Amino acid sequence: MSSRKRVAILGSTGSIGTQALDVIGRHRDEFDVVGLAAGRNADLLAKQTQAFGVKVTSTARDGPQGLLRVAVESEPEILLAATDGSVAFDAVFAAVDRGINVAVANKELVVAAGALLVEAAKRSGSQLLPVDSEHSAIFQCLVGEDRSEVCALVLTASGGPFRHASREEMEGANLASALAHPTWRMGTKNTIDSATMMNKGLEVIEASRLFGFDGDKIEIVVHPQSVAHGFVIFSDGSVKSQLAAPDMRVPIGYALSYPARLQTLGALDGVLAMLGAKRGEAALRYDFEAPDPVRFPCIRLAYQALAAGGTQPAVLSAANEVAVDAFVEGRIPFGRISDVIEGSLNRARAQEPTLDGVRAADREARRAAGEIVHAIERAS
Amino acid sequence: MSSRKRVAILGSTGSIGTQALDVIGRHRDEFDVVGLAAGRNADLLAKQTQAFGVKVTSTARDGPQGLLRVAVESEPEILLAATDGSVAFDAVFAAVDRGINVAVANKELVVAAGALLVEAAKRSGSQLLPVDSEHSAIFQCLVGEDRSEVCALVLTASGGPFRHASREEMEGANLASALAHPTWRMGTKNTIDSATMMNKGLEVIEASRLFGFDGDKIEIVVHPQSVAHGFVIFSDGSVKSQLAAPDMRVPIGYALSYPARLQTLGALDGVLAMLGAKRGEAALRYDFEAPDPVRFPCIRLAYQALAAGGTQPAVLSAANEVAVDAFVEGRIPFGRISDVIEGSLNRARAQEPTLDGVRAADREARRAAGEIVHAIERAS
Repeated sequence: MSSRKRVAILGSTGSIGTQALDVIGRHRDEFDVVGLAAGRNADLLAKQTQAFGVKVTSTARDGPQGLLRVAVESEPEILLAATDGSVAFDAVFAAVDRGINVAVANKELVVAAGALLVEAAKRSGSQLLPVDSEHSAIFQCLVGEDRSEVCALVLTASGGPFRHASREEMEGANLASALAHPTWRMGTKNTIDSATMMNKGLEVIEASRLFGFDGDKIEIVVHPQSVAHGFVIFSDGSVKSQLAAPDMRVPIGYALSYPARLQTLGALDGVLAMLGAKRGEAALRYDFEAPDPVRFPCIRLAYQALAAGGTQPAVLSAANEVAVDAFVEGRIPFGRISDVIEGSLNRARAQEPTLDGVRAADREARRAAGEIVHAIERAS
Repeated sequence: MSSRKRVAILGSTGSIGTQALDVIGRHRDEFDVVGLAAGRNADLLAKQTQAFGVKVTSTARDGPQGLLRVAVESEPEILLAATDGSVAFDAVFAAVDRGINVAVANKELVVAAGALLVEAAKRSGSQLLPVDSEHSAIFQCLVGEDRSEVCALVLTASGGPFRHASREEMEGANLASALAHPTWRMGTKNTIDSATMMNKGLEVIEASRLFGFDGDKIEIVVHPQSVAHGFVIFSDGSVKSQLAAPDMRVPIGYALSYPARLQTLGALDGVLAMLGAKRGEAALRYDFEAPDPVRFPCIRLAYQALAAGGTQPAVLSAANEVAVDAFVEGRIPFGRISDVIEGSLNRARAQEPTLDGVRAADREARRAAGEIVHAIERAS
């Protein structure tokens, strides 16, 4: 008797959402798609709805109630939270409060409201499952292990397009060079975050929230081949790592199928090639190096925001969005992104560590970051 | 309240035995050494006995009864089986039959009698814990995972001293070059096995026995830095790996302390350097490549013996010992080691798959291998 797992997706037409439906489409007998929420891409949503026979859907026009309907009223066993920004916070919290497991691909949610989310999940018994490849790797390495025996977590970073660039080249980098990511295919925002390495800073905060370790126990290693996605270092000097092709469908599939693993056709061949175990393939080489704190100041800012706690991670995340937008629009140089964030963190006032406090911090940070962007524009 | 784990060691004065006592000496409040069996090094045994306050000991002079006393009558919770060859087979089986957990460092035991050992352990509830770094890695990667979701196991190999040698160079290699192992410090036999890569062949058979996978699900990858010790490939395209400094005390400590992990001082620093996470350290590079089946025919022979089953693995192991001894004594060239083994496998008659059958196969293989060695000597 096969009982298919009921899945709902917030952000079904985005990068993670479409890849999740691709995974589900290849494993039809494992999953039943019960709810889909999209933003403005109603055409694609209609196609998805038909393809998967979905009963409950919503678009941006339906507002927060639409998200809530998909997240909770469709009665999923697992909700994939894959919208960007804070639009779905209430819907995800509502699902968590009812004990629905959540596969978390909404970075801002974990960075800005992670402490609240983890608390809510503990209360209700909802399981939070990471979707990021790095956090999925760490989650997988922790399976069956005693967390009190963990010394440190290590997130790997591709190093982005500027791994070998000089500080001078980076200062004046243009959009095209910042978007030229070597290994992962992602949206604009994520790709710029990879160029500044703020993506790793945000992931350090996420890892801290999801796994309950302080920042001083979370390290970053640059690994340009993006094959090893994370490491867990144990007290006895052993390290565990999870490796996979740089394909988001692997961690998405794991989050959806956990604690089981999917049977993916051809997985073995691909992996053997990746490990150099196939005769006739070229020998493989994987590199590991520490990130450069001088060229990538965003990493330091993220650790600072994590250590400061409260709503500072929310400020970091919001100011980063404003700064990246300003760079993409050609208003500030690449090298000033970190200045906008640092200035916003310095100006931020302490807020209540509640969802409302997080929202207030977000609003204020956007205002402050906007002002700093203007100041930079005027000065140039 | 700390209750110290009662440990007995067969082969306490050998390489694994002394390293195990080094680990135990650093974790006195975790372990109580209740029995030690040595071969001929009575002086070192006396020192160990005094240092650890051991009540039950034996040497080669005490014969099988001495080993049995240490393995069983000392009432250990875990027995470290670290003698070479078949001398301790009866004692280890006696311990397994009584449900005592066994940390298995006796390669011949698992290769020649592994199927019987695993059966006996299943009957009694005894847990078999691998001590080899490669098998420990795989064991650790399987923790908390569902074995039906495992596609393949991968053992890493340093590649030994002849990784880059030509077939001609290898044919006539002398003892010194075969003993020049790049990463691990081991005894003569193990180091020659590394040069022929028979060590990996034997480990493939061990992995098959310990983890219950056929040979076609066990791969070998050459990884000269010896940092990643093994990989487990799962059905969803995920891979788990265990990494550690090439120091046998890590897997020995894990086997003794399992399911807990020891707190090893300085572990974090060493590991961070190993992963390239320490600023100021050079960037690291890890290589992976398939082993060359032409230059390392011993690998093929091991897979053949495993596939043939029965007592052929015992024949492989015994013939290999004879061939390696003959090479070390200067009686046959390096390039003929595999010929001795292949000839012995071809001559071997099927034996009952019992401990007596294994012993008979071992004796006959040694005789056959000896004859082939003589033939090679006469012909040269």
